[in-house]
Amino acid sequence: MPALKDSYIIPAAADMHVHLRNAPGPIASLVTPTIRKAGIDTVFVMPNLAPRPVVSVDEALAYKDALVQLDSGVNYLMSLYLHESITPEEIRKAKSAGVFGVKAYPRGATTNSQWGVVSFDPFHDVLKAMEEEGLVLNLHGEVPSSAADNVTVMNAEARFLPVLKGLVEKYPKLKIVLEHCTTADAVEAVRSLGDNVVGTITAHHLSLLVDDWSANVHHYCKPAAKTPEDRRALLNAVVTSNGKFFLGTDSAPHDISSKKGKGNTAAGVFTQPYALGYVLTALEEAIARNDIPASSVTDDVLSGFLSRYGRAFYGLPTTGLPQIRLTRGAARVEESLRGKGEDGVEVEVVPFRAGEVTWGVEWL
Amino acid sequence: MPALKDSYIIPAAADMHVHLRNAPGPIASLVTPTIRKAGIDTVFVMPNLAPRPVVSVDEALAYKDALVQLDSGVNYLMSLYLHESITPEEIRKAKSAGVFGVKAYPRGATTNSQWGVVSFDPFHDVLKAMEEEGLVLNLHGEVPSSAADNVTVMNAEARFLPVLKGLVEKYPKLKIVLEHCTTADAVEAVRSLGDNVVGTITAHHLSLLVDDWSANVHHYCKPAAKTPEDRRALLNAVVTSNGKFFLGTDSAPHDISSKKGKGNTAAGVFTQPYALGYVLTALEEAIARNDIPASSVTDDVLSGFLSRYGRAFYGLPTTGLPQIRLTRGAARVEESLRGKGEDGVEVEVVPFRAGEVTWGVEWL
Repeated sequence: MPALKDSYIIPAAADMHVHLRNAPGPIASLVTPTIRKAGIDTVFVMPNLAPRPVVSVDEALAYKDALVQLDSGVNYLMSLYLHESITPEEIRKAKSAGVFGVKAYPRGATTNSQWGVVSFDPFHDVLKAMEEEGLVLNLHGEVPSSAADNVTVMNAEARFLPVLKGLVEKYPKLKIVLEHCTTADAVEAVRSLGDNVVGTITAHHLSLLVDDWSANVHHYCKPAAKTPEDRRALLNAVVTSNGKFFLGTDSAPHDISSKKGKGNTAAGVFTQPYALGYVLTALEEAIARNDIPASSVTDDVLSGFLSRYGRAFYGLPTTGLPQIRLTRGAARVEESLRGKGEDGVEVEVVPFRAGEVTWGVEWL
Repeated sequence: MPALKDSYIIPAAADMHVHLRNAPGPIASLVTPTIRKAGIDTVFVMPNLAPRPVVSVDEALAYKDALVQLDSGVNYLMSLYLHESITPEEIRKAKSAGVFGVKAYPRGATTNSQWGVVSFDPFHDVLKAMEEEGLVLNLHGEVPSSAADNVTVMNAEARFLPVLKGLVEKYPKLKIVLEHCTTADAVEAVRSLGDNVVGTITAHHLSLLVDDWSANVHHYCKPAAKTPEDRRALLNAVVTSNGKFFLGTDSAPHDISSKKGKGNTAAGVFTQPYALGYVLTALEEAIARNDIPASSVTDDVLSGFLSRYGRAFYGLPTTGLPQIRLTRGAARVEESLRGKGEDGVEVEVVPFRAGEVTWGVEWL
């Protein structure tokens, strides 16, 4: 007997960490329409575009307009990329323009982090303004790898946690999201801090371990998936969240040439079109492994993690939402998604669990 | 000023862990002639051929004949794959036929380990015979990954070390090689055991860390490269070996389709043609990082690790050997090696540090 029910009706989901890439652009055109298909109507959009990240309110609004052109049925929560060019005035402008957060990337830690933060000290006035305005600080919580300091992809997140705690001490009212938590240490750190500090958890980190990405480039992402103990902690964080943890898929589409081409492997797992199904499958597999009790996956837990808790943190309504039905076995993940930009450039993105049967989504 | 001299003259090297693949066959034809080119004239040949591993003396001798056809200037030390079909009689036959070792693969731990060992208990009589005959047990020292037991590619070697110690306790005179040590724990375990227990160290594990293989499929191998602390321990093992550690490259050629093709990534780093240069470069980089003192890399250390210690362990002469000269900057690693089998099948193998300048080799 399956550990979960065969179908669930929950409020439309919110995915509080997505990469949609440059818009207009072939990958944005391919990926953006899959948001609603996935049962999601609200997304927090990451600003790490290349060759230029989103560092001003005007750029964020222009980006939003371009995304609305691709699908006007999605509520895009926009963000800025924490950068030395951002002033406290820009933070106040961001707040009044409806920008929701500022993403901090440690320099060198992940995709398009070359313009990122070395130290938070130079950003004191900006962080103060964010604290005052209630603008969220979104943290990519890794320190850069360093042989001298014995930092690798495996402990880069744990090594970042003192930085998180230092920020909380210095800016006690600042709203902070520790994005894409991957370790038991991160879960514990978020739990130990106040209500203004939460964590997002991706769909794929509820399934993957280091072994999975070692031999499969489509499973490689930053932060990298870690150990069975870490995965167990993430799964338990989902089912005991109470608002401290919510879905942020970090869905990161890359053209196949960035995964299987001549050069190094781009970091990122593409989960957007089937994100909710991946979560349900991961929870069911976790029950089978005794990582979580079957009784822990209630309707309330699912609607909280997938829909309500993220909205609540960002100050969005959590009632009166459209409903979706998730149905076991009613969809199959494509082997790949293909598209073409207006310039004729072809792109191919391979989704997580390609070819597998998954949960179907209907809007009610 | 470079940390090493610009050239070294040492006895011909011995590489005590190589994968030459099926012979005749396109990869064997491509790779075998690169052994002497690399300054190596003695190799310990691993038996994990597919679809059938080398499980009898007759097969080992036939494999050796086929390799001699490809290059008669190399001394091939042959091995058997520890398998339930092997009897104590076959062990005695192996000894008298000049087979040098029996390789044990934990089932499921690496390439072509599907016929491997689940427990050593059923092999008691075979191991007793090996101990009596002086046949070497070559261990792939990893336990299979297991979510239930919290084993991943990162701790699979450390988890194997109690198995090694158990074997030493039960068969105190058995000659054992812990192949391709990758961790500080493995180095310490080998050091703590008697003279009949040694370790091989590859060229690439003296350079690589987990970060390197995370984004580069050509750097992915089993056991996987680990942390800066682990690499430091390996480098120190090389320069303080005193016979406990010697070169076994685990050079593992795979066609590009197994690295960059549609499926999962094959494990293995191809180092055969430039193995000695990779070691020298790694030592020089280690000096620059202060992982080892510059004074530790003496002519005696190099000739011991690269040439004499492996021969001594396998009972081969260590004097009167041909000499080679290694010269800084006198060679460049190809972007790839291409060949064609007798059946017309084309193969392409990408070497470690492709395109980089490296040390040249001359036979004197």
